[in-house]
Amino acid sequence: MLRRTYDGQVCSIARALEVVGERWTLLIVREAVSGVTRFDGFLNRMPIARNVLSDRLNNLVECGVLERVLYQDRPPRHEYRLTAKGRDLTPVLLALMAWGDRHEPSPTGPPAVAEHAACGGVVRTRMVCDCCEQQVPPGHVVRRSGGSGLSG
Amino acid sequence: MLRRTYDGQVCSIARALEVVGERWTLLIVREAVSGVTRFDGFLNRMPIARNVLSDRLNNLVECGVLERVLYQDRPPRHEYRLTAKGRDLTPVLLALMAWGDRHEPSPTGPPAVAEHAACGGVVRTRMVCDCCEQQVPPGHVVRRSGGSGLSG
Repeated sequence: MLRRTYDGQVCSIARALEVVGERWTLLIVREAVSGVTRFDGFLNRMPIARNVLSDRLNNLVECGVLERVLYQDRPPRHEYRLTAKGRDLTPVLLALMAWGDRHEPSPTGPPAVAEHAACGGVVRTRMVCDCCEQQVPPGHVVRRSGGSGLSG
Repeated sequence: MLRRTYDGQVCSIARALEVVGERWTLLIVREAVSGVTRFDGFLNRMPIARNVLSDRLNNLVECGVLERVLYQDRPPRHEYRLTAKGRDLTPVLLALMAWGDRHEPSPTGPPAVAEHAACGGVVRTRMVCDCCEQQVPPGHVVRRSGGSGLSG
């Protein structure tokens, strides 16, 4: 059972962070998006303790971000496959990557880029208005209370 | 001085999470984006302990996401103003909000929407290819090592 960190917050950002806001969790999702599926695969790519990795993977399975699948019978071995819900975290990862590239740059340049599989171009997140279809700069976004009328 | 959680990770996502990956930090930035600037203002909108809020605000100032500004002389009082670097976290918040709305929905509907100040339309993040200008679905994004050649 997941700890509820942000109880009392009527907010989709808080609910998202209940699932992916723990240390290491988004880096595990990053590896899953890159195709890593096995416990040792994650372990080899991050300096993370086994028990922490195990806890995070279990939580991600419980939340439906990963699916635990038996890939070998004797001995039984499981792998962790990204679900559609997990894959939908890609824009979160891209937005963090762009911010890190810009504001916390590495001395050796951007260590990774997101490529469009079809054409090899660089994929970025843009903020676009559904109504006027214009690209919207950060200072022009206003957060408004929605359906519940509570502070969101 | 910030703790380094993800030492050894050559990755912009990890560097971004060093700044905004702690509990509550992105919700504090959410409030700052909504115009909250004062200690008590943050405190009134989140069930957060004073010492935790104080620690998070200090870290955000140290990282240049917020700026600490004297707004009253006697007694001296400071407020926390979002910097351009902080405002650039807006796409991260929008991406998390969209994911929360879709995959961890509130029973009372989306509690907040991001509006385009100019026209009142809803602002969303889209993943777009710089090269072909097509909108890219999550499964069509491939992460490739960049400048450093190291796993990113």
